[in-house]
Amino acid sequence: MVSTAGIIIIGDEILSGRTKDTNVNWIASELNNIGIRLIEARIICDDISTIVETINLFRNKFTYVFSCGGIGPTHDDITTESVAKAFNQKLEKNREAMRRLTLHFEGTNIEFNEARQKMAIIPVNATLIDNPVSAAPGYKIENLFVFAGVPKIMQGMFHTIINDLTGGKKLFSRTVSSNIGEGMIAKELERIEKKFLGIKIGSYPYFKPGSFGTSVVLRSEEEIQLDKASKEVLKAINNLGGNGKIYEEDQVDERNL
Amino acid sequence: MVSTAGIIIIGDEILSGRTKDTNVNWIASELNNIGIRLIEARIICDDISTIVETINLFRNKFTYVFSCGGIGPTHDDITTESVAKAFNQKLEKNREAMRRLTLHFEGTNIEFNEARQKMAIIPVNATLIDNPVSAAPGYKIENLFVFAGVPKIMQGMFHTIINDLTGGKKLFSRTVSSNIGEGMIAKELERIEKKFLGIKIGSYPYFKPGSFGTSVVLRSEEEIQLDKASKEVLKAINNLGGNGKIYEEDQVDERNL
Repeated sequence: MVSTAGIIIIGDEILSGRTKDTNVNWIASELNNIGIRLIEARIICDDISTIVETINLFRNKFTYVFSCGGIGPTHDDITTESVAKAFNQKLEKNREAMRRLTLHFEGTNIEFNEARQKMAIIPVNATLIDNPVSAAPGYKIENLFVFAGVPKIMQGMFHTIINDLTGGKKLFSRTVSSNIGEGMIAKELERIEKKFLGIKIGSYPYFKPGSFGTSVVLRSEEEIQLDKASKEVLKAINNLGGNGKIYEEDQVDERNL
Repeated sequence: MVSTAGIIIIGDEILSGRTKDTNVNWIASELNNIGIRLIEARIICDDISTIVETINLFRNKFTYVFSCGGIGPTHDDITTESVAKAFNQKLEKNREAMRRLTLHFEGTNIEFNEARQKMAIIPVNATLIDNPVSAAPGYKIENLFVFAGVPKIMQGMFHTIINDLTGGKKLFSRTVSSNIGEGMIAKELERIEKKFLGIKIGSYPYFKPGSFGTSVVLRSEEEIQLDKASKEVLKAINNLGGNGKIYEEDQVDERNL
């Protein structure tokens, strides 16, 4: 069975355009590498009922759910309160989290005050996720992983839990980059996708000053079939009078012009 | 009444991590500038029923809905088919779109073939959105704007329809950047947010080699109140022994470390 995932990005600052989210793409790549299919990502605002609703939908729908953001010490950090509501659980000051944070602040001139102690409060049945950057832990509850929003911290947390995830076969990919238009190759791509079962073909046009073309991306769990299909795409491109080249992994990204 | 918006990003290539989405942030900033509140953004896969469901939810929930991606000529471009289903409308080869595309390909060595003609097929009641980059139009149907996924094209389309959007008051923002921890200022921020009605305060910690601090972002439609509240935040930071500086607009973004 294929493991699936959903990502929930929590934060008004993303929706206002102030902050560029980079967490979706980073997690998406990590999941892809271990054969977990990311099915949906949502960027939602700092609103408890929206967070509760999204968590409950996702945790019932996907194998794994990852949330990013809203677990800091301030009044706008409402993720933990929402998680407790979603799982119908009580919150408690976690002893191990208190210990780690106490240690972290010892010997600094930072007071481990009430606001900071809020970061040790998590749902009763949650287990801690290490924070290798700034001590305040994330946590896991059933299939939900609650991460910080700061990319470096989120990435550290993700890497401490990655071995707990059961992936499937890695999805391999090939990119056939070509100098012909998407509309020219469309029919051939449809034919080739039908011919090779289990291979998914996407096509992405690119436009640059003085040139244009199409990147055809083929994805499959079966590498041998993937190479065969990629060669057939290249042949079709050549037959249509174009030039092309097959790239082994995802080095080309013409879409971000 | 405040206008709201939702964004739908359609494409497996985003969810696989191959392509970084930049459209959410770009549209979010544009909407923020004209006083439209982006409430949610979803990144969904190339699946007709998911697209239909998301469109129908969003168009009933928000003033404006913007979709990006999936309107090209190939077999994986299924947005238009999904839009027609969501609005229960028939598709037709739009005469004006055909005219524009015919003109566009005239005098080139590109054949305006069947696949490319697919880009002229839109729902019966839709109106065209200009594509200043590559001719193939987007379209509008009721409160849904259907854009291409390629950023440059999407941006061109957005700018041709921006005058059709009814915004509200622009939301002004101030960022108070400081060298004190989030946990230290938390209580004061809560107090200040309660004191100034209509002002929303978010706080974002940052960590850099050798330093850390907090960016406090205040947002409001009322610029005078906003300046007052920002000064009170700065004063609170100083009273706590820290230094800070007020930035007029969103130039600082410590979250993308």
